[in-house]
This record gives sequence, structure tokens and C-alpha cells, in this order.
Amino acid sequence: MTSPRLEKLNASLRAANLDAAILNPGATLKYLCGVDFHLMERPVVLFVAPEREPILVLPELETLKLDLIPFKTQGVAYGENPDEWNAAFAQAVQTLNLDGKRIGVEPQQLRLLEFRRAQAAAPNADFPDAEEVFADLRLRKDGTEIASMRRAVKIAQDALEATLPLIKIGMTEKELSAELVLQLLRHGSDAEFPFAPIVSAGPNSANPHALPSERKLQNGDLLVIDWGATYDGYISDLTRTFEVGAADEECRKIHEVVQAANAAGRAAAQPGVPCADVDKAARSVIEKAGYGKYFTHRTGHGIGMAAHEAPYMRGDNVQILEAGMTFTVEPGIYLAGRNGVRIEDNMLVTENGAESLSDLPREIRSVG
Amino acid sequence: MTSPRLEKLNASLRAANLDAAILNPGATLKYLCGVDFHLMERPVVLFVAPEREPILVLPELETLKLDLIPFKTQGVAYGENPDEWNAAFAQAVQTLNLDGKRIGVEPQQLRLLEFRRAQAAAPNADFPDAEEVFADLRLRKDGTEIASMRRAVKIAQDALEATLPLIKIGMTEKELSAELVLQLLRHGSDAEFPFAPIVSAGPNSANPHALPSERKLQNGDLLVIDWGATYDGYISDLTRTFEVGAADEECRKIHEVVQAANAAGRAAAQPGVPCADVDKAARSVIEKAGYGKYFTHRTGHGIGMAAHEAPYMRGDNVQILEAGMTFTVEPGIYLAGRNGVRIEDNMLVTENGAESLSDLPREIRSVG
Repeated sequence: MTSPRLEKLNASLRAANLDAAILNPGATLKYLCGVDFHLMERPVVLFVAPEREPILVLPELETLKLDLIPFKTQGVAYGENPDEWNAAFAQAVQTLNLDGKRIGVEPQQLRLLEFRRAQAAAPNADFPDAEEVFADLRLRKDGTEIASMRRAVKIAQDALEATLPLIKIGMTEKELSAELVLQLLRHGSDAEFPFAPIVSAGPNSANPHALPSERKLQNGDLLVIDWGATYDGYISDLTRTFEVGAADEECRKIHEVVQAANAAGRAAAQPGVPCADVDKAARSVIEKAGYGKYFTHRTGHGIGMAAHEAPYMRGDNVQILEAGMTFTVEPGIYLAGRNGVRIEDNMLVTENGAESLSDLPREIRSVG
Repeated sequence: MTSPRLEKLNASLRAANLDAAILNPGATLKYLCGVDFHLMERPVVLFVAPEREPILVLPELETLKLDLIPFKTQGVAYGENPDEWNAAFAQAVQTLNLDGKRIGVEPQQLRLLEFRRAQAAAPNADFPDAEEVFADLRLRKDGTEIASMRRAVKIAQDALEATLPLIKIGMTEKELSAELVLQLLRHGSDAEFPFAPIVSAGPNSANPHALPSERKLQNGDLLVIDWGATYDGYISDLTRTFEVGAADEECRKIHEVVQAANAAGRAAAQPGVPCADVDKAARSVIEKAGYGKYFTHRTGHGIGMAAHEAPYMRGDNVQILEAGMTFTVEPGIYLAGRNGVRIEDNMLVTENGAESLSDLPREIRSVG
């Protein structure tokens, strides 16, 4: 018993001249196995070697999940004493004859907890970075994946629209964030959100990665809401910027610039185009308006089962867009100590162009 | 400008004969810095070396968070092109003169993403496992931390009590889980839960790490709910088992045994006692009742800023309990294909004994 996803990984490993790969809990393991394992203090590692039955090293209390994996997998279970881990890793390496071989790893996911056990079990193996193999595996979404992402976008949009009428001047960023989370769940998001919503107003909105604070919404603030839902393991990741009451001229000006940059970035997306072009299209709008140095991050990142994945919309990225790729376009302007704006949509590259999965109004709206 | 927590870490590093430590986003970094950094595709690493000002390697768009750290920290920020990472790591290593030194790492948290950059910057350094140094740093909770944990327990308990009257035969595990999540937020949990609630009934309850499914609650099911809240970064982690309608004799029997095991585990907790004794106290009750082989996991784990941390209540763990330690007692019996029971409380070791922070009724209650 095998699965198309496992076969695709095996083919990629062969093409990359790798004898095997090891995976710990994260988006790639879930993509392959269709089941969540815990990324915790007990190591869970899947050993994949083409032509062989994969082996999953896991704690005894997770073994019922083996039956949920869509390909035949040999479980090597260990008990509660961590002294048993080494024997389990050794059994996996010996069964698959991996010592001295080339074993691909996922540096963004694999911890020293797992890596050092694998290395001890296969001291003569090489463990090259195979991030590109794993990224490529999940890069082009199929119809089922896209349907889940559409649903994740719809849940997020509906949840925000249900939240907007409840916004009042004087409520804190944290209170607004809690209300949005409630609405996300009520509209059908999985409980495991892609990330906790960013709700940042006034000076806090100038911090692209702000956390919701006890600061109260004030008339004249810009209000950045960056939020997303999860549906069947697939995520959405949107941002809109509002004015609380009425914002000043500068605020409206930077919002207008970012809105034009967002439109330019979306318009640049199509098959055959390098990611850099999407970044450049959005960035040049902001640069021409004189705010280039206040756009301090890339224009976007891929989305799927992970909240941040390939392809990345960076000015240095020559990766070519292909049908089925999904990513954000999220230019921003951040004026430290004053205000910030970001407008973020979720794009799908199609055969002939690109589609924005998100369609909430992008113009500035007043709340509170 | 320094901080007591940084000073404590520095003293521990000296005692462990370590020249430095590196930390990436996770509970330890948050404990030290009091601020969340993203564990994502961009590396964030704090380099701590006693007698020196710590250095934080981070993306430019996170630099506003430097001001929130309670000790003076030199930021080394990099831009969006990953080619800049190596230079940032090299600058940190050179400034602190770390090549050839002993740099402690946290294997449960540090990924190859960060580790390989640090290793490339300090090719002659050793990177010994310093898990015990970091675990010890967060092991004994102070009054403020305990107050947050009490609040996290109260939020979780109140949320469950608000959920119980809404349980109906025929509702799915997923629906019940969503309702509980809503109640957790309504009662004041932070949006970043310690884990998504486990709601498992009937045969699913026999899987200790089950995920909520589309299965509907049926009369006669045992229903395991394992849930927790987060308050100010500190978590609670509770489990209660219910009967849907009326369960059969076997179900009531195993519930009674687990309830007695839970009481025995709690009663064994006191300063000066090894963790193993807590495990043995709970386990022996289950073994004497003839269900020993169906209790497939340790009796408990530490809790705090992380959902699983030291001290671990395992039969092989000689670690001695001390005042201020906080952990779960959560024995269970799992009859594969039939039913399962787990009852979990959150314990605080005091000067003279131990206190259960949780006090929800433990006897079997009927729902639905």
C-alpha cells in the first residue's frame, strides 16, 4: 500500500540524489500522513527511503494513529523512559540500512532533539538540507487543497465582517482580538489557528509583528487587523487596515499608496513570472510615492498547510510562479511612532493568470 | 541594565561550565525576554554570554520588540534576503568571541535552521545539550507565575462548567470541542491555547492523543475531555471523563480505578519526594486493579509557560520535588476499541506538601 504523495516524495528524493529523508511533526509530515502528530518533548520521526516501507519512530501512546496513515508504515514504538529512544532510532536506521547514506532533512522543522538521535544512530551518514524537496512537494495545490483554502478565506472574511459592527472607540486591542477569535470559531475555523490575530492601532500599527495590547482604540487611529482561519488543515492569512472614527491626511495618503501597491502586486502574479516581479511591482508603487524605506518586509509568502511556506515574494527570488501556487500579497508602510498600513490578500496562480481568493473591500473603512 | 532571570541564567551557565547559550523562540526565550518572537522561517536567536551584553539576531521587522526586553540587548538585524543571515550570526559570534567556546543549546526547541547557522559562524565551538540548565531556570514558579496558573485553571474550569449543560447526545466531538473553545475565550483565556482540546468519546476515548472527530456522542459512551487555558502566557491542562447518558459496569469500574489512582498520585506529591514516587503511587492502584498494561503513559508532566516541561512524573525519574514546582497528575486506562478514562489535575508543590490548583468534581458525571 502506497500513496501518490509518498510516491512523489520518493521520486524527488531520487532526483535529488538522496537515499532517504527524515521528517518530524509539521506541515510536511501531515501532508504525507494526513494525521497530526505532536511536536513535543517525545520525538516522532518518519524515515522515508524509496523502495522501502517507511518507518515511524513514535511513542507507544501515539501508535493508534499508525492505522490512519494512507501508506503501509512500520511503527517502532518506545515507552516512557527516554533511554529507549536511542534503540528505536537505531532500529529504524538498521532496518533501512541508512548509515553512511545521504538523508535529507528539513532545517525549518527538525530540532536537535530528533537530529542528534538520528545522527547517533547513523554516525557516518550525511544529512543535507532538503528544504527544497519538501517545499516543492507541497508547492502546487490540487483541487481539494484549493477548495479548503477557499473555505478558510471565506471563514476569515465572514468572521471579520461579523466583528466590524462590534468595534467601539475605547475597546482594547485585546478585546477586539478576542471577539474576532470567537467569530472565527463560530464561522467554522478549526481550533488550531494559523496564528493569533494581530490587532494593532495607532503607534502599535507601525510594528508589523505587534501583539494585541491593552491599548484602547482612539479616534484617528489606523487599525491594522491581520488574521486568518484554518479549514481542514489549510489556512488563510488576510490583512485590512481601518480608520477609527476619522484618520488624518497622512494616514489616508499612506493607505491609498498601499492599496495601489497591493493591486499592482496582485496584477503582476501569473504563471511564468518570477516571484521577484510580484515584489517589485508592489514595492515600486511605494517607492515612487516616497515611502520605500518604510516598507520593511517582503511583499508576501506562500501559504497552505503552513502559515509561511514557499514561494516567497522577495526581490531576490528568481523562483517562477506556476499554476496551483498560493501566496500572500501584503505590502505595508510603517511610520514608527505614528501609524502603519498593511493590505493583504491570498492569491492563487491559475493556468492563465492569478485569482485573489479574498475579496473583502480594500479601501479604507471607518470603524468605531 | 540586567534582570534577575538573566542573572540566574548566567549563574547557571557558569556552574555548568558553559561559556554561552543560544535560544530561539519558545518558552525559555519568552521567560527571559517577556515578549513573544515568531518561530517561523526567519531565524531569531538570542546569544547569552555571562559578563557580556546579550545579542539578539532577528529580522528587521521585529526590531521594535527589542525595547520590550527587560535587559540591555544588542540587536543584530537582517533584511529579507536569507543570504544576510550568515553575516548576522557571524557578527554575534565575533562580538561575543564565541568560536571555540562551549555554547549550550536547547535540543527540544533549537532547529537545524538556527543551529547550522550558529555552527557555521563558530565552527570550532562545542554545542552541548543544556536542556537541564533551561529546565531548571523555569522549574520553580514564583508568586506571580503561580497566580497566573491559578487563573488559567479557573478559566478552564469555568469554561468547562459552562459547556457541560450544552452537551447533547448526537452532537459531534468537533462540535463539542468548538463550543468549549468559545467558552475558554469568553472566560478570558489568551487566544494562544496550550493545545487544542481533546474531545474523544466511545472507542476514540481509548486513544490518549485522539483528535476531535465527526463521530457523534452516543448513549453509553465514555467521554474524555482534556483541555486547558492560557493566562498571561501560563497554562492549565485538565482532564475529566464523563458518561454520556449511562455507561456500563466496565466503564464505571475503570473510572473508579482511575479516580483512586489520581487521588493516590496527588497524595504522594510533596517536597523531597522523587517524581518516580508520584508515578508509582498512581500506577500501583491501577496495577492492583488488574489494568496495569492499559495505563500506557507516564503519570504526569510539568506545566508552566510550556504545556509539557520538567518535572516529568515517570517511574524512572529520580528528580526530587521542590516547593514551587507545578505538574499534572493524569493517570488513565485505555481499552482499545472500547473506552478510555483519564482524570487530570494540576498540582503545586508547597513548603509542606502539595496543593491541587484544580478542584472540579472528579467522580463520573452524566452528560447529554
